[in-house]
Amino acid sequence: MTVQTIEVKLSESKGEKPLAEELQFGRVFTDHMFIADYCEEKGWTDHRVVPYEPLTLDPAAIVFHYGQTVFEGLKAYLSKEGKIRLFRPEQNMRRMNQSCERLCMPQIDEEFALEALKQLLIVDKDWIPKAEGTSLYIRPFMIATEPYLGVAPSTKYRFMIILSPVGSYYKEGIHPVKILVENEYVRAVDGGTGTAKTAGNYAASLKAQEVADQKGYSQVLWLDGVEKKYIEEVGSMNVFFKINGEVITPELNGSILEGITRKSIIQLLKHWNIPVIERKISMEELKEAHANGALEEAFGTGTAAVISPIGEFNWQDEKFVVNEGKTGELSKQLYDTLTGIQTGTVEDPFNWGVEVN
Amino acid sequence: MTVQTIEVKLSESKGEKPLAEELQFGRVFTDHMFIADYCEEKGWTDHRVVPYEPLTLDPAAIVFHYGQTVFEGLKAYLSKEGKIRLFRPEQNMRRMNQSCERLCMPQIDEEFALEALKQLLIVDKDWIPKAEGTSLYIRPFMIATEPYLGVAPSTKYRFMIILSPVGSYYKEGIHPVKILVENEYVRAVDGGTGTAKTAGNYAASLKAQEVADQKGYSQVLWLDGVEKKYIEEVGSMNVFFKINGEVITPELNGSILEGITRKSIIQLLKHWNIPVIERKISMEELKEAHANGALEEAFGTGTAAVISPIGEFNWQDEKFVVNEGKTGELSKQLYDTLTGIQTGTVEDPFNWGVEVN
Repeated sequence: MTVQTIEVKLSESKGEKPLAEELQFGRVFTDHMFIADYCEEKGWTDHRVVPYEPLTLDPAAIVFHYGQTVFEGLKAYLSKEGKIRLFRPEQNMRRMNQSCERLCMPQIDEEFALEALKQLLIVDKDWIPKAEGTSLYIRPFMIATEPYLGVAPSTKYRFMIILSPVGSYYKEGIHPVKILVENEYVRAVDGGTGTAKTAGNYAASLKAQEVADQKGYSQVLWLDGVEKKYIEEVGSMNVFFKINGEVITPELNGSILEGITRKSIIQLLKHWNIPVIERKISMEELKEAHANGALEEAFGTGTAAVISPIGEFNWQDEKFVVNEGKTGELSKQLYDTLTGIQTGTVEDPFNWGVEVN
Repeated sequence: MTVQTIEVKLSESKGEKPLAEELQFGRVFTDHMFIADYCEEKGWTDHRVVPYEPLTLDPAAIVFHYGQTVFEGLKAYLSKEGKIRLFRPEQNMRRMNQSCERLCMPQIDEEFALEALKQLLIVDKDWIPKAEGTSLYIRPFMIATEPYLGVAPSTKYRFMIILSPVGSYYKEGIHPVKILVENEYVRAVDGGTGTAKTAGNYAASLKAQEVADQKGYSQVLWLDGVEKKYIEEVGSMNVFFKINGEVITPELNGSILEGITRKSIIQLLKHWNIPVIERKISMEELKEAHANGALEEAFGTGTAAVISPIGEFNWQDEKFVVNEGKTGELSKQLYDTLTGIQTGTVEDPFNWGVEVN
């Protein structure tokens, strides 16, 4: 994506904005979207902000058949001063390029893509909800558009950014969830696509989530695909455990997605001089830590929830309650700090916040 | 999909049919397609044959983000008597439902879907190429269409069938290919989606194929994702080895796709009283069989090529030539028999052929 101008075509009508208390996740979209098109001969062209409208694609487009697609997720907040704030957006653009590399898709110009996002946000600024805990969810994504049924990388792509105002993940304040340890289905394996933010990983996860839902659990804890012994992720989040005062998160092993919230938490903990270590951790070890009373807290981390405390595990029909099913102190502190940095109400020692002018 | 009538809306113009010698794979599509739509409240509705045209989908449609999509592939042939012939199409519809089950997608009525396919084929019969080795490739597929960014099964789907006239896989007669044994990337693992015909498996395979292409190999031989020791598939085909007069194919282990050509070959071999066994087979065993002179033939099997003889393996930079790089006798016999049954020129002991009236 060479630096080019962005054409802006404004929508003639404005969509109705949902009330703060009616906001859900990812159901309503703003008035505009950003689009750029790629073909092998010309690279990225036709960068434009246009009214949000349906896509028109050939039924043979590669994305429908062979899933060549990657995406990102981040949020924009409105600060008390009315400024648009982003949280480490350059990290999302970088990871998008890493995902593209794995999926044989073209690279984007990360700086230009961020510029495009900022322009789109300025156009749809009115859509950023103001109530506590709400935000504008941002979904950059790229799809393979060439109509071709051969199994080969597409020669044509579309890069898009769409925006959706979302409610607070916790309607009644941060609270712990119950999770089911998954012993049958596997999310990803080393050598697969687990480190990329690509559609197939999420498609593969639906079945296990369905089973968990039926049993009354809100998330699945994924184990490694080789030995089904080591902990990988929780739902579509990374996972952390506080054991004997030390914070442990599974090391990046070739199948775990490197979350930007994960990375930020590791940096924050180090900044706070709290011991944090990335290493293999097995369900057996977790079970033992629980039995010894050493397991103090457990939580998932991701863009949607920021921090999602875990109050209970079910592993092979045995239940393990963590911290009496309550949100741990560290979980709360991390949640408050990260959301504070995101909205601009808390000191930002790493300059993670980016204001859009 | 309850049995309903199929509305037919014919195209006002007819597309230009490519000449037999210009036919490629999956680049040109016929004048019409079949569509049915699903929503949770009504089930499958609006079954229709309509002119082939672009799809219109919300940019937030789940298929673009979370890859909830499955597909099938089969072929229609024109017999010498001018009849449309299909090969075991009920098997494809059955497998499509198995894939849907894994991906949390709704079931189709298999018989009705086959009926819809037949109607579509009658409308576009002129598109079935007549030259030897050519056929009309059929692509049934289903995509999740609900606009929603939550990671959850869609409540809306579209089922479609599109058709593409394709050339002979072998322009100059059946010939062996060179393949690269893949030691880094993994196609699928038990507990993943390898047994389903879904987009993510194909997206995951592109990178390894790219590396193989660069090294001058036409396909990748996939090893298991756990030990990287046992043979799984070749490219997007199943794989067979003839060792000491016995035919061996990897057993269905939870990550291998159950090919309809694979299944048919096993039945044919049994019918011919040739020993055939489904079991684990490692690269070490293959290497040893090659060293002993016991490895007589190797071939991939799938809808596109039917039989694809393997003339050479490269495993960790060591090369193994099979049958002096020539097409083996059994490979040729299987190819001739299967393509003969498909086109109706050879006796069909299992009644695999289905004629469309």
